Amino acid sequence: MKKLKLILAVAFSSLLLAACGNLNGMLSGGSKSSSATTQLTGQANHGDYQSVIKNGRYLTSKSRGVNIQQNDNQFNLKSFENGLLDVSKKQFPTNKYIFQEGQYISTNEAYKWLGRKSKSNPQGLNPSGKDTKVPLYLQQLDEQDFLVQNGNSLKLKGMTVGLGINSVYYYTKEKYGSTYQMNLNDEKIKQIGKAMASQILKRLRSNSKLKNIPIVIALYKQAPDDSLVGGNFFAYSSNNGSNINSWNSINEKNYVFPIQSGSKGPNNNDQSEFTNFKNDVQSFFPNLNGVTAQAHYVDGSLSGMHISITTQFYSQTEITSFTQYLKTAAQKYLPKNIPIDISVNSSEGTESFLSRSSSSNSFTYHVFNSY
Amino acid sequence: MKKLKLILAVAFSSLLLAACGNLNGMLSGGSKSSSATTQLTGQANHGDYQSVIKNGRYLTSKSRGVNIQQNDNQFNLKSFENGLLDVSKKQFPTNKYIFQEGQYISTNEAYKWLGRKSKSNPQGLNPSGKDTKVPLYLQQLDEQDFLVQNGNSLKLKGMTVGLGINSVYYYTKEKYGSTYQMNLNDEKIKQIGKAMASQILKRLRSNSKLKNIPIVIALYKQAPDDSLVGGNFFAYSSNNGSNINSWNSINEKNYVFPIQSGSKGPNNNDQSEFTNFKNDVQSFFPNLNGVTAQAHYVDGSLSGMHISITTQFYSQTEITSFTQYLKTAAQKYLPKNIPIDISVNSSEGTESFLSRSSSSNSFTYHVFNSY
Repeated sequence: MKKLKLILAVAFSSLLLAACGNLNGMLSGGSKSSSATTQLTGQANHGDYQSVIKNGRYLTSKSRGVNIQQNDNQFNLKSFENGLLDVSKKQFPTNKYIFQEGQYISTNEAYKWLGRKSKSNPQGLNPSGKDTKVPLYLQQLDEQDFLVQNGNSLKLKGMTVGLGINSVYYYTKEKYGSTYQMNLNDEKIKQIGKAMASQILKRLRSNSKLKNIPIVIALYKQAPDDSLVGGNFFAYSSNNGSNINSWNSINEKNYVFPIQSGSKGPNNNDQSEFTNFKNDVQSFFPNLNGVTAQAHYVDGSLSGMHISITTQFYSQTEITSFTQYLKTAAQKYLPKNIPIDISVNSSEGTESFLSRSSSSNSFTYHVFNSY
Repeated sequence: MKKLKLILAVAFSSLLLAACGNLNGMLSGGSKSSSATTQLTGQANHGDYQSVIKNGRYLTSKSRGVNIQQNDNQFNLKSFENGLLDVSKKQFPTNKYIFQEGQYISTNEAYKWLGRKSKSNPQGLNPSGKDTKVPLYLQQLDEQDFLVQNGNSLKLKGMTVGLGINSVYYYTKEKYGSTYQMNLNDEKIKQIGKAMASQILKRLRSNSKLKNIPIVIALYKQAPDDSLVGGNFFAYSSNNGSNINSWNSINEKNYVFPIQSGSKGPNNNDQSEFTNFKNDVQSFFPNLNGVTAQAHYVDGSLSGMHISITTQFYSQTEITSFTQYLKTAAQKYLPKNIPIDISVNSSEGTESFLSRSSSSNSFTYHVFNSY
């Protein structure tokens, strides 16, 4: 198991919250009606799901606290959660289904499944063996539930489960010793992920509440710990029975711009558009600390960018002027017809940000302010 | 002089930048035309000024680096810069004037003016005397220039100068010793500020480039170092000659909600609306670390709020749901017809934010994301 980098308190409070959610009783899947009040979070926007509030409290995920501990690279965590939601949206449209954080795989089960198989942990999905010899493949898992409104109640009508498989396995030979790494090839990742998916599907079907709903399982390849962008989903399967039907492949990749010298980039044209933008902006405010982008590719085409600009501390008027200038420069240099956002950050936090949706022609911006 | 709390490198690079600006030559106020290209930052938005780019570089402020060192409370810095811009907007409308960072009070002058008057520093605006006996009143100053387009060139047509006067003077009796404080009353702050304004106006008029433009001087009362909101402007004067004509008072105040017990709040109704919002939101996600607001009052009426919510680290789906919920709750509980923004922050940075302008009925939001 990986060492904790985040404060334990965070994980613990997540677990506590999950327990609270449990006390309120299961919102859906059960036949008895409870006197608990159920609300939704409000009108969906930007293609987001509405989600469930029970007795005024948000139903938090049961297995989430576990994932925080499993990921030394926070980019894998966010990327995994967002990517899984994208897979779900293919299967469960946001205008029909209501999202609920995973309520069926318990915290305890999540811990066991992520462990090595052993006498004391027969449920472990990772292979038995020594940490120095046999890699841990499964690094994180997440469950998402999808409900449909039926009169005054909500009924479980679908589930998506994501499995995050390592592309690099990190281990130490002794406590606090040096970290070694084992690279895992794509074929192995695919094979292992599919085998685990079969086992998980069978386990979920053994819960009577999950017998007759569609269950989607999606496989994610974790990025290395030193990556500045998360990994990517590469396959998913939608199932009605207890055996995996078939797999659909997902062709997505993430890159960090500028591409490091020596590394192969996705597309010279996209890269040079970004470079032109970066050069223009850096000459405008010569002492910017960095201009980088996370670029997301679907089926080989650029489909979105998150740009991050780090500044030293400027005056409020400088930040405003800089943001106005960014709006013009982004319009001029950056690719059209994809969603892009740009954050301007200093040591004080986020100073301003701009965004443009794929359907919009111009960027909107906000400068963070203080009285 | 106050000790530096910000890394010196920041201040130094600001000074360097200011020097760079100087090399490009003065953009306006001079009669000779230069071959340097001048651009503007782009279409003004939200009532912001356009500002000046010279040879592809933003003209940074000459005196700005000094202010960073003078303020132990960063809220005073932002609040002072923003407030001064609001004063300027009364005098120099954003659709007619172009904003330029102060180019006429040099870094060196700013240092001298902010110092104590002495044999070696006859220009010092703070009174001579021992640091343990005689308070420093003037804590920061800022210059803003306003230009008008005239064919292909820009001409200086106005200036605003802000003076930040301490409400509490902090001093130590020995190096690294305990900090003592002296409270300065409003009458004294007003009297000192007005006297300094007279001197500054005369000094500026002695520069031939500043002889015939309107010069606005505005007085700001600094908040104490432990305040979670900045101070406020209390008077301004618009002048054509070398003597102050008359003063207009500004009735603005900033508060932090919730009001600390024992302190007097501005308006019970506003406070209870905020409290209802806070309670509703905190019961939704019970382990929020804090919900606070900066509330800005003009002539006794609430005129804007910046709300800050601190969360522990949640999953991306939780942040999205929480943000949707905030949109509904903010609509329901918070005062109408004033600009409000809400930032959701974790130890990872800003997770999401919502904003509503005074003329709009609903909040827009953005959830910060990662691939």
